[in-house]
Amino acid sequence: MNNFRFEILHKSKISNARVGRIYTPHGIIDTPNFVAVGTNATLKALDSQTVNDIGLQLMFCNTYHLMLQPGTQTIKKAGGLHKFINRNAPIITDSGGFQVFSLAYGTVKDELKSRGQKKLDNSIVKINEDGVLFRSYRDGSPVLLTPESSIQAQKDLGADIIIPFDELPPYHISHEKLKESLERTHRWEKRSLEYHLKNKNNQAMYAVIHGGVNQELRKKSSNFLTNLEFDGFAIGGSLGKNHQEMFELLDFTIPFLPPDKPNHLLGIGDLNSVDNVIKSGIDTMDSSHPTRCARHGLLFTNSGTKKILNSANKINFEPIDKNCDCFTCKYFTIGYLHHLFKAKEMTGYTLATIHNLHFMIKLMSTYRKLILEDKI
Amino acid sequence: MNNFRFEILHKSKISNARVGRIYTPHGIIDTPNFVAVGTNATLKALDSQTVNDIGLQLMFCNTYHLMLQPGTQTIKKAGGLHKFINRNAPIITDSGGFQVFSLAYGTVKDELKSRGQKKLDNSIVKINEDGVLFRSYRDGSPVLLTPESSIQAQKDLGADIIIPFDELPPYHISHEKLKESLERTHRWEKRSLEYHLKNKNNQAMYAVIHGGVNQELRKKSSNFLTNLEFDGFAIGGSLGKNHQEMFELLDFTIPFLPPDKPNHLLGIGDLNSVDNVIKSGIDTMDSSHPTRCARHGLLFTNSGTKKILNSANKINFEPIDKNCDCFTCKYFTIGYLHHLFKAKEMTGYTLATIHNLHFMIKLMSTYRKLILEDKI
Repeated sequence: MNNFRFEILHKSKISNARVGRIYTPHGIIDTPNFVAVGTNATLKALDSQTVNDIGLQLMFCNTYHLMLQPGTQTIKKAGGLHKFINRNAPIITDSGGFQVFSLAYGTVKDELKSRGQKKLDNSIVKINEDGVLFRSYRDGSPVLLTPESSIQAQKDLGADIIIPFDELPPYHISHEKLKESLERTHRWEKRSLEYHLKNKNNQAMYAVIHGGVNQELRKKSSNFLTNLEFDGFAIGGSLGKNHQEMFELLDFTIPFLPPDKPNHLLGIGDLNSVDNVIKSGIDTMDSSHPTRCARHGLLFTNSGTKKILNSANKINFEPIDKNCDCFTCKYFTIGYLHHLFKAKEMTGYTLATIHNLHFMIKLMSTYRKLILEDKI
Repeated sequence: MNNFRFEILHKSKISNARVGRIYTPHGIIDTPNFVAVGTNATLKALDSQTVNDIGLQLMFCNTYHLMLQPGTQTIKKAGGLHKFINRNAPIITDSGGFQVFSLAYGTVKDELKSRGQKKLDNSIVKINEDGVLFRSYRDGSPVLLTPESSIQAQKDLGADIIIPFDELPPYHISHEKLKESLERTHRWEKRSLEYHLKNKNNQAMYAVIHGGVNQELRKKSSNFLTNLEFDGFAIGGSLGKNHQEMFELLDFTIPFLPPDKPNHLLGIGDLNSVDNVIKSGIDTMDSSHPTRCARHGLLFTNSGTKKILNSANKINFEPIDKNCDCFTCKYFTIGYLHHLFKAKEMTGYTLATIHNLHFMIKLMSTYRKLILEDKI
């Protein structure tokens, strides 16, 4: 089995973008790259073989969901996540922290709408120095998530890249509370790393840089975490209330990260962000956005997005994109997909997902080429 | 383009079962065979390429549903059903009559439960000699279905085998009413045939033998319809209130059909029927049962059916059937499918459907082998 390693092939002369390669026990991830999200150990509407055929190099699975169903012990018994889902390519898992807190607080968007008035729902029972006690959304049973239990769960899953346990503070939070949360997150991440280093299990661990939208705290978080033995760095927490704030935050934060280690942007991968995110120097980014768009009938092409349910598509018997070489465009037309979506047939969701995932993978390949040519 | 033709390769020495080949413009159907149902121009949860790979030789599509969505004119514009769904193998469509009437009357099972008290719902506005006026379940708009409009719709769809317009009388019906219905159905089928023969469009037409559970009427229907220029004969209408009644009815009726023409059993293809149906001499049978079972987590194997949601399956990391060579059994385990069904992931429905469809196709191949050896 190969060890985790990161290699930079080229740095753009006109931006912070870079082309590299992450080596993992289950193969290579070319960077920059898009990481698709398979929350429940599958990309929705696709199977692992199809995902392999499309060429996805890194898949994101959610520890929180897998802890509750089927349970990490079950997946361990199956021989780990790769065997369970029959994937012979890299996987990354998160700590479960994000889900516990975001399900309780709602998304930043929800918060912005409610102007910070949204209160905790009752899924979180207790947060203290030890960790967080919450109720399972499946059966209401109490679950204690701590740095150690999160990392043990991720050891059982056996992904190539794992994430330390962190707290996701709400977007609307006082400076004092944010500082307190950050300090606790740092202690949790350090405990996670210590637990991980006792049994590396040939996994790599990426720290999660926090600090919300506060530059001073982002700098502090970067300094603290980059002094520990992490293999890479993910940027998490609240990234601002709009794209511009996020881009500024990335441009501010990334220079504090060691240039020879891979970095990852958590939860961002919409088409409007990709360009700036890559220029800021991000190596990998995960998002359920392209696959969720697909299931809602929003198809990506080089000439813009297409709403499959638009009535004009009913009698359009061309492929989604004439220049696309994905399975869906090779065999099926817009008109047929329009019909499948109208008839609410699952087949439509599968074919649309294949197309959007293929689009993202090709897009990333194009970005790598442009960076190598110093055009980005 | 090849014309429609039926060839009998072997007749069993110990039953009425026979092995044959139906030649159509889009290829061969080996008989006896199972015909999967793709109501909305797709097998649920599968795409046409996958269906081809599994080896389905004849696919059943429902004219009623396709008339209402996307409309047969749309499919005609696409170049017909084969091009629309990208299938290069035989397709059969029905007349739409069955759906109009069964949606109004409910199924025989519903009727048996209600002891014939179930009344027409309000979807059927009028039935007269001309045809039936009903309301679209999609938008409530009135649709007139006549022998001529049904056949024209099926000309627009362009399936290899088409079905004349018939009435599906309820199971609970007086003898007098059943006779009247049968006579009208015969007039409708004759009009359908006449309309078809004006423009054969390289399609074959199978008559539908009616008469409900009354042997005299089944004989009468067979005699009337076999004297017309149909290419094959389907057995439709109420087939009895249990398997035994159906088997007796088939054994009674099939001898009245010309032995050199293919016959089809409409809407039956559950595992408990297949054996007797084949022994009675049926060549093809359509049913949504195996694919519907799959989506409900009931998986077919040679050693019986398996309920995927059984808790014992959670940690069973064997394939559904060790001797099965389908895509699902090759790459995935029962435990993973159990998880996908628990998590309500579409991927699970797709993988289960692939398995059950493959099972039915293999089962039919086994039956053909056994008939050739005079073991069935």
